[in-house]
Amino acid sequence: MALRAALRSRSGFSSLLSHWSSCSHGTVRVSPVLVAQQRNNSSVPVVKVDFDQSTGVAVLHMQSPPVNSLSLDFLTEFCIAVEKLEMDKSCRGLILTSSQPRVFSAGLDIMEMYGKSPERCGVFWKAVQEMWLKLYSSNMVTIAAINGSSPAGGCLMSLTCDYRIMADNPRYSIGLNETQLGIVAPFWFKDTLANTVGHRHAEMALELGLLYNPSEALNIGMVDQLVPEDQVLTTAAQTMKKWLAIPDHARQITKSMMRKPTIEKLVSKREADIQNFVTFITKDSIQKSLRMYIEMLKKRKG
Amino acid sequence: MALRAALRSRSGFSSLLSHWSSCSHGTVRVSPVLVAQQRNNSSVPVVKVDFDQSTGVAVLHMQSPPVNSLSLDFLTEFCIAVEKLEMDKSCRGLILTSSQPRVFSAGLDIMEMYGKSPERCGVFWKAVQEMWLKLYSSNMVTIAAINGSSPAGGCLMSLTCDYRIMADNPRYSIGLNETQLGIVAPFWFKDTLANTVGHRHAEMALELGLLYNPSEALNIGMVDQLVPEDQVLTTAAQTMKKWLAIPDHARQITKSMMRKPTIEKLVSKREADIQNFVTFITKDSIQKSLRMYIEMLKKRKG
Amino acid sequence: MALRAALRSRSGFSSLLSHWSSCSHGTVRVSPVLVAQQRNNSSVPVVKVDFDQSTGVAVLHMQSPPVNSLSLDFLTEFCIAVEKLEMDKSCRGLILTSSQPRVFSAGLDIMEMYGKSPERCGVFWKAVQEMWLKLYSSNMVTIAAINGSSPAGGCLMSLTCDYRIMADNPRYSIGLNETQLGIVAPFWFKDTLANTVGHRHAEMALELGLLYNPSEALNIGMVDQLVPEDQVLTTAAQTMKKWLAIPDHARQITKSMMRKPTIEKLVSKREADIQNFVTFITKDSIQKSLRMYIEMLKKRKG
Repeated sequence: MALRAALRSRSGFSSLLSHWSSCSHGTVRVSPVLVAQQRNNSSVPVVKVDFDQSTGVAVLHMQSPPVNSLSLDFLTEFCIAVEKLEMDKSCRGLILTSSQPRVFSAGLDIMEMYGKSPERCGVFWKAVQEMWLKLYSSNMVTIAAINGSSPAGGCLMSLTCDYRIMADNPRYSIGLNETQLGIVAPFWFKDTLANTVGHRHAEMALELGLLYNPSEALNIGMVDQLVPEDQVLTTAAQTMKKWLAIPDHARQITKSMMRKPTIEKLVSKREADIQNFVTFITKDSIQKSLRMYIEMLKKRKG
Repeated sequence: MALRAALRSRSGFSSLLSHWSSCSHGTVRVSPVLVAQQRNNSSVPVVKVDFDQSTGVAVLHMQSPPVNSLSLDFLTEFCIAVEKLEMDKSCRGLILTSSQPRVFSAGLDIMEMYGKSPERCGVFWKAVQEMWLKLYSSNMVTIAAINGSSPAGGCLMSLTCDYRIMADNPRYSIGLNETQLGIVAPFWFKDTLANTVGHRHAEMALELGLLYNPSEALNIGMVDQLVPEDQVLTTAAQTMKKWLAIPDHARQITKSMMRKPTIEKLVSKREADIQNFVTFITKDSIQKSLRMYIEMLKKRKG
Repeated sequence: MALRAALRSRSGFSSLLSHWSSCSHGTVRVSPVLVAQQRNNSSVPVVKVDFDQSTGVAVLHMQSPPVNSLSLDFLTEFCIAVEKLEMDKSCRGLILTSSQPRVFSAGLDIMEMYGKSPERCGVFWKAVQEMWLKLYSSNMVTIAAINGSSPAGGCLMSLTCDYRIMADNPRYSIGLNETQLGIVAPFWFKDTLANTVGHRHAEMALELGLLYNPSEALNIGMVDQLVPEDQVLTTAAQTMKKWLAIPDHARQITKSMMRKPTIEKLVSKREADIQNFVTFITKDSIQKSLRMYIEMLKKRKG
């Protein structure tokens, strides 16, 4: 049930390499699934929160260059920011968006999985779970303003929201594409997707690791609305008003009723899910695969 | 999980008032969710059943002015009528429709929840459950001929049927709009909706308390077919013939197989569901909200 | 929950007869649900497997005249063939198709249910379960190249696959039409269908025993793609390439994660499901109905 990789798989690698190669000209596309992000040594926070007291709506901008990859630092800071807003009774709505060009979030940071102790890997995975738990069970209205590509963990983040608005740019893509790299989305990724697009679309999307362009994502219900890129954030704000017209208490109880079984499933299996991840990711074969992948990324940058 | 209100919520009230206000001109629209219905002091039955022995089909006309709201009296009479047809082996199909103009049923009667003893509230809620149980588990083919608006409890009633035909009149609407008034649809309303339109549409419909016009309802699968208003009943009769061409025994076992888990869930939690409702509805804050709501309705009539 | 018949039902018979009658001119249509197949006395195998070592893809042609009905012999041979491919590590993909004109598979063989001992009926039903278990849990990529009608058990077979490509010929149909003959699809047929088309479409499809033409099947998601008849197999081969580009290990774990609960349900109830079938099918009334049905088929051939 946990994240498992077969990065050693030839076909996985070759398809990945061809993907990079086909993307090397023209618009930069973000790496699917895993990104070896440049270390953020500056003191600039990775998230910026604009909270408007008059509307009760906070906009959380992810601003971790280059592609908002989900490192332990990022997740920790992100969760603290969300938790603060959650505790603030005057904050009723949260819009998630990106300050980085062309990408919402590129997903989990591969550097958190390579050369780390089992303890550290467990801490990282717990942080990924925490992000999901915080967002999926939020009492706030949550809207994803998806202004760029959103593979893997980035897609998961948007799937936790109450509503998804995506930039209508055919160069962007969204999806849980883990299998394309020989990895498996864990059961709670799967549950979140199936709750959104139904069992059959979830099955095909996950088995093939499909990345959908915005129109395709709209067609299967992975996102709710497409708008021109420069209107993503304003549309999110307008949509938020409609959601906030509903009495909070009734909306919150209803949201909880819909999502409780899915949340309780991870809560009850949380430790086992972490153990599965750690056991898998610390295997020699997987570490070797990760090293090869990281080296490939470095060469590409060079 | 039970019905809960936040009628005290300002936004709930203001949106409701604006709704009434926007509807005060042009076609009369029925109150969403709850209706303080004029007491029916006449001896005219609230339901009229036309049973055609030659076809084995009964048409149940709801005729409780003005909007077929679901009072305890109505529910009791309705359930007795359905039970009689259920016991009659010669009755194989049931068409539900309304004799009232522009409304199928406006849902639960607010007067059953205001100023009543806990015992009485419990009796009322048990009757609501009974209506759902009888319809959702009926051995008859059940078709909703939705010839008017059908909010809240009226929508639930139609969702229990095997097939839904709605009048293609854009002024009509259908949906479980409880949250718009600060109330929450209980879990078995939610299950019935999710079984019909899937998890994602159910989540958004319930959180926002969406009322859909007929085209929208068709698009998400909340109704199965739209026809001109004067053809709703004849189309229902024609459709019934197709359903009755299937051997009863096989169809009934199949229907039971599809619905059993959902029915068993309420049956096993029935008492707790009643207790939840009673505890909530008899709170001082809720009673106060209901009084304000009823006074608003009276002023509007005056 | 098990297969149950109401073949004694008048309406079942008359609708069946009218079905046959309406199909007696023009293109031959295969019998829905059950077929009294000519005994295959030749030594020609009922399945032919073409395995291409260079691609890792096997094509299994069903070639049991006239309509690939699922007899015990057929099922046994079919399961052995699938099992062999499953065990062969070099075989990664399986395409199921038919060598018979105008039919993929007509479903369960009625002769296996008539005049047989309870023991034999149990053995037959176990073989039907075995086919489903083998296909639904296969580690191979499975694609149904549906080049003809595919009612009942034939539809089930295609529903177990990862992807369904159907010939775009409006004379062909597909669906779980058991109730049209007064029979009930067992719970695992239902689960497989609901996993594919969702709860509501499954409910209506099963209650009415609907047979869909290719366009309708595509619309509700019962099949994934329509192509001209002469391109079904080539399209299946092209599609297989895309699926095989995904690392096997990750795809297999993902597939298992999606299907495990459905598979475990039958595994845990397998004996009870067999008992239900045997008890039902050996009833005098059912055997009488089957005899009448078989005689009708014979007259039609004569």
